[in-house]
Amino acid sequence: MHAYRTHNCAELRAAHVGQSVRISGWIHRKRDHGGLLFVDLRDHFGITQIVTDIDSEAFKAIDGARAESVITVTGDIVARSAETVNPNLPTGEIELRARDVTVQSHAQELPMPVFGDAEYPEEIRLRYRYLDLRRERIHNNIVLRSNVISSLRQRMTAQGFTEFQTPILTASSPEGARDYLVPSRVHPGKFYALPQAPQMFKQLLMVAGFDRYFQIAPCFRDEDGRADRSPGEFYQLDFEMSFVTQDDVFNAIEPVLHGVFEEFAKGRSVTPLPFPRIPYRESMLKYGNDKPDLRNPIVIVDVSDHFTGSGFGRFADIVSNGDVVRAIRAPGTAEKSRKFFDDMNSWAQSEGFAGLGYATQKAGEFGGPIAKNHGEQGMRKLAETLGLGPDDGIFFAAGKEAQAAKLAGLARTRVAEQLELIDKNKFDFCWIVDFPMFEYDEESKKVDFSHNPFSMPQGEMGALETKDPLDILAYQYDIVCNGIELSSGAIRNHKPEIMYKAFEIAGYSQQDVDTNFAGMINAFKFGAPPHGGSAPGIDRIVMLLADEPNIREVILFPMNQKAEDLMMGAPSAVSAKQLRELNIRIADGPKG
Amino acid sequence: MHAYRTHNCAELRAAHVGQSVRISGWIHRKRDHGGLLFVDLRDHFGITQIVTDIDSEAFKAIDGARAESVITVTGDIVARSAETVNPNLPTGEIELRARDVTVQSHAQELPMPVFGDAEYPEEIRLRYRYLDLRRERIHNNIVLRSNVISSLRQRMTAQGFTEFQTPILTASSPEGARDYLVPSRVHPGKFYALPQAPQMFKQLLMVAGFDRYFQIAPCFRDEDGRADRSPGEFYQLDFEMSFVTQDDVFNAIEPVLHGVFEEFAKGRSVTPLPFPRIPYRESMLKYGNDKPDLRNPIVIVDVSDHFTGSGFGRFADIVSNGDVVRAIRAPGTAEKSRKFFDDMNSWAQSEGFAGLGYATQKAGEFGGPIAKNHGEQGMRKLAETLGLGPDDGIFFAAGKEAQAAKLAGLARTRVAEQLELIDKNKFDFCWIVDFPMFEYDEESKKVDFSHNPFSMPQGEMGALETKDPLDILAYQYDIVCNGIELSSGAIRNHKPEIMYKAFEIAGYSQQDVDTNFAGMINAFKFGAPPHGGSAPGIDRIVMLLADEPNIREVILFPMNQKAEDLMMGAPSAVSAKQLRELNIRIADGPKG
Repeated sequence: MHAYRTHNCAELRAAHVGQSVRISGWIHRKRDHGGLLFVDLRDHFGITQIVTDIDSEAFKAIDGARAESVITVTGDIVARSAETVNPNLPTGEIELRARDVTVQSHAQELPMPVFGDAEYPEEIRLRYRYLDLRRERIHNNIVLRSNVISSLRQRMTAQGFTEFQTPILTASSPEGARDYLVPSRVHPGKFYALPQAPQMFKQLLMVAGFDRYFQIAPCFRDEDGRADRSPGEFYQLDFEMSFVTQDDVFNAIEPVLHGVFEEFAKGRSVTPLPFPRIPYRESMLKYGNDKPDLRNPIVIVDVSDHFTGSGFGRFADIVSNGDVVRAIRAPGTAEKSRKFFDDMNSWAQSEGFAGLGYATQKAGEFGGPIAKNHGEQGMRKLAETLGLGPDDGIFFAAGKEAQAAKLAGLARTRVAEQLELIDKNKFDFCWIVDFPMFEYDEESKKVDFSHNPFSMPQGEMGALETKDPLDILAYQYDIVCNGIELSSGAIRNHKPEIMYKAFEIAGYSQQDVDTNFAGMINAFKFGAPPHGGSAPGIDRIVMLLADEPNIREVILFPMNQKAEDLMMGAPSAVSAKQLRELNIRIADGPKG
Repeated sequence: MHAYRTHNCAELRAAHVGQSVRISGWIHRKRDHGGLLFVDLRDHFGITQIVTDIDSEAFKAIDGARAESVITVTGDIVARSAETVNPNLPTGEIELRARDVTVQSHAQELPMPVFGDAEYPEEIRLRYRYLDLRRERIHNNIVLRSNVISSLRQRMTAQGFTEFQTPILTASSPEGARDYLVPSRVHPGKFYALPQAPQMFKQLLMVAGFDRYFQIAPCFRDEDGRADRSPGEFYQLDFEMSFVTQDDVFNAIEPVLHGVFEEFAKGRSVTPLPFPRIPYRESMLKYGNDKPDLRNPIVIVDVSDHFTGSGFGRFADIVSNGDVVRAIRAPGTAEKSRKFFDDMNSWAQSEGFAGLGYATQKAGEFGGPIAKNHGEQGMRKLAETLGLGPDDGIFFAAGKEAQAAKLAGLARTRVAEQLELIDKNKFDFCWIVDFPMFEYDEESKKVDFSHNPFSMPQGEMGALETKDPLDILAYQYDIVCNGIELSSGAIRNHKPEIMYKAFEIAGYSQQDVDTNFAGMINAFKFGAPPHGGSAPGIDRIVMLLADEPNIREVILFPMNQKAEDLMMGAPSAVSAKQLRELNIRIADGPKG
């Protein structure tokens, strides 16, 4: 018989009754039942019930071991009586009558229990992460994460991608903000940096002629943590393709994302292929932002025209000033009190906006000052434009377009949350496309890049030479799920002359480009293919699938919000000898 | 038609003749043939021949583009005439008659060519790695590496292992030598370290109850580079298993290694399962080291007994002194000149040994001073012990056991190389097992750990309490292929009381253990399973399979031997602002 186990703790069934077996695991829970001791023995795979007589040697061994001690139990499988069968446990038809018990490892008193669902402070959980990870929910999350990554790999391979490892010790980027630095021992005074993303490397892979690259890539950004961002390191499904258009990128990655979400959806629905593609400007109008939660059925409508010369003077003024009025439907709010509407207005003010107007409606009758001043006929027309039901209210966000769009977007979300309109049982995907290449920067009073300077402008050199820069769109796109941006991406600008021209429009000289982006621009001068890609965030994908609001729950050994690993004691002081070898000194405090 | 390609450069066949197609790629090579221009167009997948008339527009476009420019060619597939078919090229039955050519990216004059096999200096190759990577051999190596890793993942999963990502920003180890450090911005004066291996994490994963872990793990060691070791980072197939014996570890990983070597062997043979298991002491005797190249048919034999009271006084003295004489067969050396044997002796002296004795033999007749002095009868007996053929010579390594073993091992390799006895067409695996737990350290005049203090001693506490420490073996093992150690591994010591005892034998107090290994020893006090694993080196596996002697040839973007990334310019100076934020200063040279 094997020294530790003939079966794992999830394998034994009625068919094993009468067999002599050996299993090993952790003492999950002990229960005393008149002369018998029951133990739930737990391993990675599941739980098996052990039973011993109180006067047996086996009992003594178990009795002397605390919960979470590791034991090996040898004995015979017996059927449970009909009334003690546990249908919720795969092994619930049997129990193991212990003949011999060996304690492999005694557990001390625990700082937190493994059994049960009680919440424990982050500090305890992270310091004793190896105990925390034994708990069912987090154990399952980590296995889910592993399965998601494995599935992503298989699906990327099926799409013709090949995984390559890019360097982790590399150069600090031109700006360098948020880079983790690594002092060089061999080159005193010089530093490596950990990559914020393998962006340069994946583009160089395309220049090197590898056609379709992907990597489950560790990335590093020295930013403070928040619920959806772990301090330190994170992972992305980094990919890049050569000789592709934007549609090719979408067609390659959509089946991967759709497939992996379907695989782990557990009954939740996933947007069918192809995912909707929403131009940036349409998204800003309809959803008030560029990462719309499409589970929310409300669509913002521009109703500025309705208020030209309206009896509601404030909106009439706003419109005549060239600004906008946006309407947010509030479905089925007939029975909501005035307070519901007033509270929304107060909320908007607390967010720094002038206010959120509204019109109530009950059985087709409008109420509130805007409706009263705008007039019955005007409200009817508005209702028609909005496709309003007879019991639907309206909120209005008015003012400068950018501000009104932002408020409308926030109000759209808040209304849907308050009215519980968001279907939690869906994964709603979309692409946001046609981002503007340039924007007018109010502060510096000049045209600048609006997002990524390295994206290819739509229309290429022709567009740069002939169009108003603010009208030029880029082959740049975001993939969004349930209002969460999983990644941005782009068809890259692989032509040095177009790169120089685009930077010139944003006020940079050819020398600026050559100095700051030497590696990339030089590589492009030795034959570069058209290429593009994206990099969906793995941690966010797993958070969505696990339905966990905090990234800590889907990472094996996360740092806390202060960027500390409490279990390993990182970061820590290091020896003077180490600092000497690296030729650095600590500026304040103890000198190295 | 797609903007860039309807097919890749390896797809087109005779069946496509008459079709209008579009392909894109790099201009690999141009050839002028009386009125026609032939172009080999290359992409990741292969090569297709393009042909244009010299007076066509397409010709002009290609003519204006240097080698390695990227072009898109549209035209018709035509069959090659019988005499121009190229059977060595998958697309060799057809060519593409160009109708339209677009240059996607003009290449400047190249610092090194892509076409051809010429060697180029490392400096040029690494600075322009994106060009170097286009060359057939290195391109294939990198794809092989990717395929090997993908195969390893699948095989590990098939063995029930799950891949988890362990942290890359972690704590400096107790000794900390060779750690890469990362200054913390949030905690001034403190440092993270990059892991030399995820050893602690994988053991904590076992303590956390994950049963079988693996990871294609990036590891970091700040050591100077050499041919088989890249400065900076390297990858290992890190794995760990719970509730296992040493045999379980072998049985789990052997099919993975055997499988992946068979898959990529290209006709080379692989040791059948199970791999031989050779005790450490046997390996030191038979092969003179603990990483034997079993492709070498020579086995070292201890012949000390033969020289007790021998007429060859030097060996008789050595033996009577308690030291040893080891014999190395030199098969079929009858026709070798005296110089061959003398050169071996000189080589041994140049390596710092006293010398390498020998006896020649031709048609059963021995020659040389040792044979003469030892006498005919003694030599016959010796020949019988060694299983010597009538034309085989013998080399002798004599002296202190450790020295003699080492010389015998080196001589075994050198003899086999000189006589070309090593079958290059084999992958010969073995496990080295039963490493001693402790050794007597001549310098400090005390017993110390001989390899890994965290391995479980065979016989556990009983052995520690009752045996001579130098007789205690450990559950520690190495996996070796063709004389290259791929990894060591062990069944771990998961019991704090045994850990304390083992350290006590090596002269360390319980407090030493608690101070230096707090994380691990504390975790073991909350219920730890018996566990063990190993971590075969990925780079070495790929080097073996690619038959490349330098690790640079199997890594995408390696650093040079001075730990510099010449392409990205790492390491580099960073801004004073960055250093201020990190609260560090450069000790010498420019101050931050």
